[in-house]
Amino acid sequence: MFEEIVEQVRKKTPLVHCMTNYVTVNDCANILLACGGSPIMADDEDEIEEITSICGGLVLNIGTLNKRTIASMEKAGTKANELRHPIVLDPVGAGASILRTNTANQLIQKLHFAVIRGNSSEIRTIARGCGTTRGVDADKKDATTRENLKTVCAFAKSLSEQTKAVIAITGAIDVVADQKEAYAIFNGHPMMGKITGTGCMLTAVIAAYCTANPENPLQAAAAAAGAMGLCGEKAYEKILRQGGGTASLRMALLDEMSRLNGQALDGGIRFEVY
Amino acid sequence: MFEEIVEQVRKKTPLVHCMTNYVTVNDCANILLACGGSPIMADDEDEIEEITSICGGLVLNIGTLNKRTIASMEKAGTKANELRHPIVLDPVGAGASILRTNTANQLIQKLHFAVIRGNSSEIRTIARGCGTTRGVDADKKDATTRENLKTVCAFAKSLSEQTKAVIAITGAIDVVADQKEAYAIFNGHPMMGKITGTGCMLTAVIAAYCTANPENPLQAAAAAAGAMGLCGEKAYEKILRQGGGTASLRMALLDEMSRLNGQALDGGIRFEVY
Amino acid sequence: MFEEIVEQVRKKTPLVHCMTNYVTVNDCANILLACGGSPIMADDEDEIEEITSICGGLVLNIGTLNKRTIASMEKAGTKANELRHPIVLDPVGAGASILRTNTANQLIQKLHFAVIRGNSSEIRTIARGCGTTRGVDADKKDATTRENLKTVCAFAKSLSEQTKAVIAITGAIDVVADQKEAYAIFNGHPMMGKITGTGCMLTAVIAAYCTANPENPLQAAAAAAGAMGLCGEKAYEKILRQGGGTASLRMALLDEMSRLNGQALDGGIRFEVY
Repeated sequence: MFEEIVEQVRKKTPLVHCMTNYVTVNDCANILLACGGSPIMADDEDEIEEITSICGGLVLNIGTLNKRTIASMEKAGTKANELRHPIVLDPVGAGASILRTNTANQLIQKLHFAVIRGNSSEIRTIARGCGTTRGVDADKKDATTRENLKTVCAFAKSLSEQTKAVIAITGAIDVVADQKEAYAIFNGHPMMGKITGTGCMLTAVIAAYCTANPENPLQAAAAAAGAMGLCGEKAYEKILRQGGGTASLRMALLDEMSRLNGQALDGGIRFEVY
Repeated sequence: MFEEIVEQVRKKTPLVHCMTNYVTVNDCANILLACGGSPIMADDEDEIEEITSICGGLVLNIGTLNKRTIASMEKAGTKANELRHPIVLDPVGAGASILRTNTANQLIQKLHFAVIRGNSSEIRTIARGCGTTRGVDADKKDATTRENLKTVCAFAKSLSEQTKAVIAITGAIDVVADQKEAYAIFNGHPMMGKITGTGCMLTAVIAAYCTANPENPLQAAAAAAGAMGLCGEKAYEKILRQGGGTASLRMALLDEMSRLNGQALDGGIRFEVY
Repeated sequence: MFEEIVEQVRKKTPLVHCMTNYVTVNDCANILLACGGSPIMADDEDEIEEITSICGGLVLNIGTLNKRTIASMEKAGTKANELRHPIVLDPVGAGASILRTNTANQLIQKLHFAVIRGNSSEIRTIARGCGTTRGVDADKKDATTRENLKTVCAFAKSLSEQTKAVIAITGAIDVVADQKEAYAIFNGHPMMGKITGTGCMLTAVIAAYCTANPENPLQAAAAAAGAMGLCGEKAYEKILRQGGGTASLRMALLDEMSRLNGQALDGGIRFEVY
């Protein structure tokens, strides 16, 4: 079912313009290459529209924001919307500062996003228009669990209705929803939380998947979330066999992504539809 | 003896705000997660005080400084002092340019640091208020050796008296001192000098250790230096067995940090007190 | 033949000032250390001349440009020219935006470069003064092949005549030429295109090799290209034996560079002179 989505990425090598934080930017570039896309990073106002134009998709990731890059993000986003390129928003740390919360909300008001991906605290902050979170990780009390899964799916659908974007609330259980349908995806391993950038990387992969499958952002985002989780699981199994810690996990995750094909994803993804 | 310090970090997951250079920022984020902390990076003046406030500790690392970030560092530092959060200063390249030397000295005048960690050339530059170094690595003539160890310990104590900060002069032998007591730590491997960011990473680990052990910055910083050295040794042994070069060493170092517990540190640390 | 060049690097530990993009800056620092050099990154106008002065060589890499860093690059380049330090230009993405194309061309007009290294699309853009490329990767139609090799060598020689710089057009076949002579180098593996930063890293290695061998930029640049390709081949063989994907390849490439000596390069490099 997701096989075709993955194969389209490998076939088209979608070029993705990433405006992203300087913490995990190298990981984002490498996972884009690993998943079959091609990255370009640029953030200066003077080139931003041209760079967006030669690409097929855009990532706006608000970690390590500053005034200069906020202006560039709006400009790039406007151009991408004009060209009908999918844009994926990653509201890193929304809720941790007013600057981040407001920037995320203003971008959502001004631009149309194909997908908004964040952890459960970030997405709740966006939905409320304000909030407080403990840094860039989700609060435990916000986590998606088996118990609150239906509520989270309903919430994601409703936020999708409001924003016209596919909503991806990722964590131990990922929920990916448009206005009508929600995928709950159960892949992944807790140790992925011990490496920086898994969220940012997933956002980049979602952008590549959406760019290569523009008619189907819901399934593209769900496939990307499943791919990331499945690669994390396989990576964990590898480091269990070979010894290793969090750095080995990170390398193995990228390795697995570089070898993933559509058939393997269809064989390994575990999901339910709500 | 250091066991409790390490275990406090694992227990509390201290959130550390890092204002650090863009060269090794990803390594700093990953080692913070590996040692049991949680990182957040932010440098824009408009959010800096909020981000500092939600964290428990702060790193100010002056590699790749610019005017914008200097102003932000002062603001974040002032807020952290107000909140009595430990701040760790890493005067990367002090002595290599007047901008770096002066920025380090002005930060020391304006703020109270829990710990100042640098290589022997950087710390000498700070003590003199000026200096010249060969880039970001220590001059060989400044190195701490068995021969000059007592002199270095006395120097570190006196600089601690002057700055009211724990002083960590790290290298082949690490000296970590407050006004009364100096730890000389003998862990580590020379090959660690062949990977970028070991100093920056150690600074981040010191910040996590101090944040989780606020009453005891001296032993926290000494434990962090011992942990880094011990993980480096174990990493070197691993790559000797498996083949590998500097990139494998870097990954193995992070792996070891992610698996270190207090008992292993107490069993492996080699130190003397002066 | 190239043995002496490599050994000079190991002997002199050339200090290289890198003004480079924030995507691959960590890789550049680590490969500089691995190949026997020492990196320092700095981009603020207030310290740029001092930092350049304490170094032996300079890298200007125009990925993730902005107005602030363009001004700094000109200042650093002017100082490096005054001091007769070799400067290596990496026109990342020239052709992808007017900002990048114009910045590359203006730097070439204002400064003397020891080496200009880019992919075939970037170098063609520079030669024409304008151009369009698909992001930061070379267009397939621009690739150097066995068929067009002599034409590419003649083109490189002519561009070298015009710019007074050694021209390195790297890809599946690398062409490195001064006004009189061109080396075609056949090392490397296609999978290297699936990791970010191989071009940026090669530029950094060229700078280290040129800084340690200032009288011989042509052979220094050719040796660096051969070293990078050879390490990539060995890295590929290693991941074939051990399993692994693109992240393992990247780590193995850095590992191999950290262990390369002059004899191994002379034994493994495959080249022709035109």
